[in-house]
Parts: sequence; structure tokens; C-alpha cells
Amino acid sequence: MFIVGELINGMYKKVGAAIQTKDKKPIQDLAIAQTNAGASALDVNCGPASANPKETIKWLVETIQEVVDTTLALDSTKPDVIEAGLSIAKNQTVINSTGADVERLDILVPMALKYNSSLIGLAMNKKGVPQDKFQRLELAATIVTYCQEKNFPIEKLYLDPIVLPVNVAQAQAEEVLEALREFKLLSDPAPKTIVGLSNISQGTVNRSLINRTFLVMAQCSGLEGAILDPLDKDLMDALISAELIRNKQIYCDSFLDAYKKK
Amino acid sequence: MFIVGELINGMYKKVGAAIQTKDKKPIQDLAIAQTNAGASALDVNCGPASANPKETIKWLVETIQEVVDTTLALDSTKPDVIEAGLSIAKNQTVINSTGADVERLDILVPMALKYNSSLIGLAMNKKGVPQDKFQRLELAATIVTYCQEKNFPIEKLYLDPIVLPVNVAQAQAEEVLEALREFKLLSDPAPKTIVGLSNISQGTVNRSLINRTFLVMAQCSGLEGAILDPLDKDLMDALISAELIRNKQIYCDSFLDAYKKK
Repeated sequence: MFIVGELINGMYKKVGAAIQTKDKKPIQDLAIAQTNAGASALDVNCGPASANPKETIKWLVETIQEVVDTTLALDSTKPDVIEAGLSIAKNQTVINSTGADVERLDILVPMALKYNSSLIGLAMNKKGVPQDKFQRLELAATIVTYCQEKNFPIEKLYLDPIVLPVNVAQAQAEEVLEALREFKLLSDPAPKTIVGLSNISQGTVNRSLINRTFLVMAQCSGLEGAILDPLDKDLMDALISAELIRNKQIYCDSFLDAYKKK
Repeated sequence: MFIVGELINGMYKKVGAAIQTKDKKPIQDLAIAQTNAGASALDVNCGPASANPKETIKWLVETIQEVVDTTLALDSTKPDVIEAGLSIAKNQTVINSTGADVERLDILVPMALKYNSSLIGLAMNKKGVPQDKFQRLELAATIVTYCQEKNFPIEKLYLDPIVLPVNVAQAQAEEVLEALREFKLLSDPAPKTIVGLSNISQGTVNRSLINRTFLVMAQCSGLEGAILDPLDKDLMDALISAELIRNKQIYCDSFLDAYKKK
């Protein structure tokens, strides 16, 4: 599973404060802790309040690179902020993210090619979020087709079906699970799939329980990546057990620890 | 979800002892506790050591019926023991179980019709357990076809794909999950599906974790019934959350408690 640790995000109080005061330690601690917990990549997001996000993302990337060589997922709605991060990243990168609008694809797909980066493609566009699996498939197909035309390698594309909160859009969860299965049929080789996990539990009580239950269901539907909190031990235990059941890791009595050392 | 509580089974020490001494209280306590925890039915199994299983199952049924009117799943490899239980059951019943061998179907399908009972059909036969989803489908199809020929209502048939321990038959879990989806296509109306959950974790450490992770994956594959320990709170929380995500129960902040009161 391609696990993107979500914790380095300026919207979190501690991270926001560390950015303000240019305090490297909290950022580096999160980079190390998430990597040790099994994160394959670290999301890097300046947060909504950053006055100079291009400078901020560069500082974050440099700060993280001092302590880990984990893949970085540059996360912004602004392409120039993403590119600022890419321009100084030493290790593998992921662009987080493009939608299905041509004007964004026109910028972000060439950028991914230029920096040899993976790309997260969201099944949404400027009209809003999809309402069923068919809209998700149509939006995903737009992204896949665009990438194929530009010779962007489809194995480096992660399609996100857009998870919505179960308390307000309850019927959407099943649509997402079905979309995950059907995205795999859009091309050969197949695109990969990813979800922003915590959306499912927004506004609910029992957030961790709902997160891990939905994650396991998505894994059963073939999910290959998730943006999540790798320090949530119950969540990681569920994720690892589902990988075991999917036969992605050989059973041993210490399979939970063994997974993180891979 | 059709939850069959597995705890009234003579192989468990306390239950075995209660059977020996004809002590009703431990049995009745388990009947009440499992029902309150959300069990739709109670498995009733004399265990391997019972000297007179026909007498024992009758005593168990009478003992349970004194305190709850929950559906009873009469569980034995011996048809005459099952029938002894059915003959005095006052409420709804399930026969647990038949395999795909004609000589067993010839006895148990007419018995289910006679007693207006539901029937669990195992995708196995005297040659042994299935090795992939195709063998599971073939065995399940044998049972469905037999039931159709005898006019047994398919809505009352629960097909069990045979779950095997993940530590020794790791690749089988995925085969089971796929079989669950495909069993639904065997007839219209579709048969229901059920699993004996704890088989998945036999011989492993972290049994509860593996049980609940596999259960959620099976629910994502459309599972409608499970024989399990309803007193395992983490397991029940996972089950209920998966039902929520499948849109089988309307979200409210107290959805975990609300489920059990249905």
C-alpha cells in the first residue's frame, strides 16, 4: 500500500506554528515518526494561512530532506507552489493534485513529466464533486485519456474517486467503492487508485473507527494508496491486516511489525 | 447483517461443563448476552464430547427458549441431532449445515422444508474443502440447483464459501471474497451468503484484529451473515461501521448503540 502521511500540513496548529517561527524540530519529528510508522510518502501542505506559500513549501521540503529520504507529496491548489517544492526535492515526488479540468491538466501533467513525478488525479472538476460512480468514471477517464495523449506513464497516475463524509453523503461510500474497482478497467496498464481517507469521517464521532473500517473496505475493492494518519495505530493495524488477507505480505506471527520494516 | 452468535457450543469449557451438570444459568446468560449484543440468531452445538447429543440439543433448546425468542441455528454434523432440536424449537430456525453431497442434501433440504427452517449450505463435499473460487462456485451451484429442484425457497439459503486460516492458506482469503460476490449471481432471487468467521484467524496471534478485518472485507463483498462472537466489542463495532458505510443503517452519532436496538 502506498501510504501518504498527512500530518505535515499547516492547517494543524503545531505545524502552522512551526512554519510561522521557522522551527524545524516539529516538522522533522513528524517526518521521522510518520516514516517509521510505515508511510511511503509524506504530504507537504503549507496550510491555508501561509503568506508566502512558495517560500514555505521550499522550507518544508528542505527541512524534511535533512532527516528522511521519503517520497514527498507536494500538496497545494496552486501549481506554482507545487513547482516550487518540486524544484528543490531531491527524492521521489508526487503532485497532489490535479482535477479533470483541461486548464489544470495542461499545467500539471507537463509538470509531472518535467520532474519525473507521480500525479494524483481527482475525479472532480470546477463544477464540483461527483454524485455517483458514473460521474466518477467519466471524470477519471478524462484524466486517463489526457495522460495517455501526453505520454504520461499511467503507472504513475493515482486516481482519487473523491470520498465524501458518510454522515451527510451516506450513499456515496458504496459509489466510491465501486468506482475504485472500475477505475482499474480504464486502461492497460491500469491506473493506480488512492483516497483521502479522513474525508469519510468528517463531522462524525468515532472518526478513527469509521476511517479504518472504510479503509479496509476500500482495500477489499483494490485500493493501492491512501492519504492518512500513519500514527493512528488502530488504523495502521487494520491496514496491515487487510494487506495480509489480500496476500500482499506473507503471514508471520509478527506481521504487524514486519510490515513497517519493509 | 444476520449475526449468528457462536458461543453456545459444548467445545467451550464453560458450556461443556454446564451441559454435563445440566446447569441452565451459563447457557441462559450466553443466550441473553449474545442477543443483547446484536445477535440475530444463536448457534446451538452440543460439542464433540456429548454422550447423547439428541438429548443434549433438546435440553439446550428448551433452556435457551426459556429466556429469549431469538432464532436458533441447530449445529451438528448429524442430521438426527439437528432434527431433535428442530422438533421442539418454538421460534425461527436455521439448519447448520449441509454440504454439497447429494446424500446430505437428500436429508437436510426436505428437513428444512418440513420445519420451515433456513439452511446453511457449505461449499464443500466429502472430498474436502475447495481450493479456489471456481471450486467454490461449482459446489455452491450444486446446492442451489438441488434446492431449486425441491422448491426450497432460495431466499432462505445461506451459502458459506468456506473460510480457511490465513496463516496456512493465505491465498484462499481472496478466493473467498470473490466467491461471495459471485455466489449472488447463481440465481434470481439470489441466495444469501454467510461465513464462519473465526476460521480465518485459527492459529494466529491477533485473532480479533484478523477476524474483524476479514469481516469488513467480506461485508464489502456483499456478505449477509456471519457466525461470530457478538461479545467481541471491537468486532461488533467494525461490523456496525461497515453496515453504516454500506448505507444499511442511517447515520446518527450513536449509530453503534442504535444498531443493537433494532
